[in-house]
Amino acid sequence: MVQAAELPRNETGIATVISVLKQQLGDRLQTGQSIREQHAHTTTWIDNQPPDAVVFPQSAQEVSDIVKICATHDVPVIPFGTGTSLEGHVNAPAGGICMDLMQMNKVVAVHASDLSCVVQPGVTREDINTHLRDQGLFFPIDPGANASLGGMAATGASGTNAVRYGTMKDNVLALEAVMADGRVIRTAQRAKKTSAGYDLTRLLVGSEGTLGVITEITLRLQGIPEAISSARCSFPSVDAACQATMQVIQYGIPVARIELLDELQVKAVNAYSKLDLPEEPLLLLEFHGSEAGVAEQAEMFGAIAEEHGGSGYVFTTVAEERTKLWQARHDGYWASLQLRPGAQGISTDVCVPISRLADCVNAARERLDADGLMSPIVGHVGDGNFHCLLLIDENDQEEMDKAAAFVSWLSELAISMDGTCTGEHGIGQGKMPYLRKELGEATDFMQAIKIALDPQGILNPGKVV
Amino acid sequence: MVQAAELPRNETGIATVISVLKQQLGDRLQTGQSIREQHAHTTTWIDNQPPDAVVFPQSAQEVSDIVKICATHDVPVIPFGTGTSLEGHVNAPAGGICMDLMQMNKVVAVHASDLSCVVQPGVTREDINTHLRDQGLFFPIDPGANASLGGMAATGASGTNAVRYGTMKDNVLALEAVMADGRVIRTAQRAKKTSAGYDLTRLLVGSEGTLGVITEITLRLQGIPEAISSARCSFPSVDAACQATMQVIQYGIPVARIELLDELQVKAVNAYSKLDLPEEPLLLLEFHGSEAGVAEQAEMFGAIAEEHGGSGYVFTTVAEERTKLWQARHDGYWASLQLRPGAQGISTDVCVPISRLADCVNAARERLDADGLMSPIVGHVGDGNFHCLLLIDENDQEEMDKAAAFVSWLSELAISMDGTCTGEHGIGQGKMPYLRKELGEATDFMQAIKIALDPQGILNPGKVV
Repeated sequence: MVQAAELPRNETGIATVISVLKQQLGDRLQTGQSIREQHAHTTTWIDNQPPDAVVFPQSAQEVSDIVKICATHDVPVIPFGTGTSLEGHVNAPAGGICMDLMQMNKVVAVHASDLSCVVQPGVTREDINTHLRDQGLFFPIDPGANASLGGMAATGASGTNAVRYGTMKDNVLALEAVMADGRVIRTAQRAKKTSAGYDLTRLLVGSEGTLGVITEITLRLQGIPEAISSARCSFPSVDAACQATMQVIQYGIPVARIELLDELQVKAVNAYSKLDLPEEPLLLLEFHGSEAGVAEQAEMFGAIAEEHGGSGYVFTTVAEERTKLWQARHDGYWASLQLRPGAQGISTDVCVPISRLADCVNAARERLDADGLMSPIVGHVGDGNFHCLLLIDENDQEEMDKAAAFVSWLSELAISMDGTCTGEHGIGQGKMPYLRKELGEATDFMQAIKIALDPQGILNPGKVV
Repeated sequence: MVQAAELPRNETGIATVISVLKQQLGDRLQTGQSIREQHAHTTTWIDNQPPDAVVFPQSAQEVSDIVKICATHDVPVIPFGTGTSLEGHVNAPAGGICMDLMQMNKVVAVHASDLSCVVQPGVTREDINTHLRDQGLFFPIDPGANASLGGMAATGASGTNAVRYGTMKDNVLALEAVMADGRVIRTAQRAKKTSAGYDLTRLLVGSEGTLGVITEITLRLQGIPEAISSARCSFPSVDAACQATMQVIQYGIPVARIELLDELQVKAVNAYSKLDLPEEPLLLLEFHGSEAGVAEQAEMFGAIAEEHGGSGYVFTTVAEERTKLWQARHDGYWASLQLRPGAQGISTDVCVPISRLADCVNAARERLDADGLMSPIVGHVGDGNFHCLLLIDENDQEEMDKAAAFVSWLSELAISMDGTCTGEHGIGQGKMPYLRKELGEATDFMQAIKIALDPQGILNPGKVV
């Protein structure tokens, strides 16, 4: 495990806050070790730093009350959704109170004619889509995990269909949030666009719980497309697959998903999911539109693929066949872990201008091989974003050091290509060393904003800046 | 004219800064009355508050030097592009230095394969599109005026095709900006998406020059569509036109523009442009896509229009005919002014959830008629945004008072409908009274950000917050 820095603890304050909150919340405050550990960072190689207590508020008013009490006694507050973030976002390096928002799980309103809805932060991505299905609507952002929408907003999540529908930044119209002094604000009204003052909505989206606790989210929705077509195509090289992707984007084909699986990832899913895909780089695609529209898109992609040596191109609009086609991607994570049972999976997250994508993926593959590190690669390649899933024996210090050096090297490579160390996972604790390398003195102004909005530094301390 | 509040002037500081800058910039510092007045607010009923001098920097380094000198002597800096903003954004209520950025007009780079480009702030919307045309690319945001891209970024501009391509917030990938202490920062790298820290890009976009001076903009571009189809259709009522628009949005028809002209606006363009459109509410549309795609969209719209009593529906893909079709919109502003020669045009800018659009437009029309105010209405109705262009005799105080009362009433009506007092024009000086009504205590946190990033308050003082 990688040890994240510990921060000074305010023992007296923490004890006082726990005793005050216990009286108010009863069983909705928990201090058992197991529940505390479950609410700290669990999903990567960053060490678990549990909070001192976990509380389960049920309203914005309760969130506000809890933040006010913590502010009075200078005690950290760490917002928590489903705990699926990857960079230590929910660790408590200075202890404090974890605020589990999953009991705030109401769909407050669906405004079907405005293509928007209002949800509490504990509603998950799958919850809202189940809720919306009968109305012919859906919320497009899909980061993989069935994450909470509050967590997705806080981390600025994106995922496989960001290439068409954008990220959370593009799909949150307004937020209600509890600020560090306990005041409840709304960042915007519900109109589709606004120029009213500074964009607090997009400042809070992606602020990872360090500027406010999100208590309500107004989301943009999409109509379920008339037709969905899925496709897959093998390529002789990562380079060829990336070139084809670039052309898709340049031609403005409104592809809904375009995912790369490299050769090792394809081998992994063949073994895990009993598939017999050619063990070559693979692109998986999805097209949304009218019947005629998706047929046209699929045809255009076919021509591009052919130009770049694509083979085995198949596409279908039949739901079961679509599911089967995408199985290789959906099973990807578990299939990868089976390449080396018992290993810890560590995901990188760089994103570069698409013209540099093939260079970046190829360089990553070369270095992985040279270092003897096992790692399939998958990518949201339409956005220039890809993940290496390093499969590491945590007890082998030399391997751990190599992996850490690789993550560092790749982050800096992406930055040198005018890209970012994090396309979608966020900074958390894990990427803090790279933020200043990437953005230089801009980081000072992020810090100034943090100090202005949270002068005591109680909101999710030790993250982002 | 409406008098905007004057702020205290730092006479000594201003005199010192002018003498220091004069030495450095020579003729690129001007103090003539006419040039100063041209660089203050000119386009609406808000009174002209000229700066004490206008400077013409030619590089980010010069901008930084100027800001540093102004910071040392506590003197306001007001960034200026083409001066087409509408809410007093470029007035100098405390005097100071206007920084005209139009000599920074280079296209720094076009990254065609990444669908992005980098420009200096003085490049205009038409400049960049001329520059890009040969490469099959365009920048979609069109606020009407041939505004500078720096100004468009600073004010978060949008316009007629935001319904498809979004606003500046969605189309700026990164900024270089000079902050209040003169430091030059970059807000993001050039990757298509990023989760690296707080979103300074979108904080600066729409901050109206109050948080930093934009010195370089990285823009997202679009491929010029294979086919463009324009269409128009008359409707028996504003309500019917709005209902048709709502259905277009709900069906997910990817319309590129959908503009409403009310009956009075149609009368105005008939007279001005010698057209013979039926004097009924009119929708003008544009569809972008493949040949088959635009045909399908036009056909779908035809069916929707018929359902809502639409008549005289015509569409075409032929360039000259498209231009003719849209003439009614392009001539709209000048045609309106001819309804009452000599009158001052004052544009409102509310935006509401689209389900409330017909209610809001109808209420506005009723009140205009009851008050005896002459005002055509045009709307970017796909976004729920519309403008009343009040035609006012500035010398008639009673009429001016009525107009002011109308603007105030409409802003509050939109806010009560969960909308905003400004969909795209921004706050400037003119909308400051409504920001707190709209967003309550969120305004305090905007102020906190302003103070954190510009503690002396030298950047465009007296605007936004």
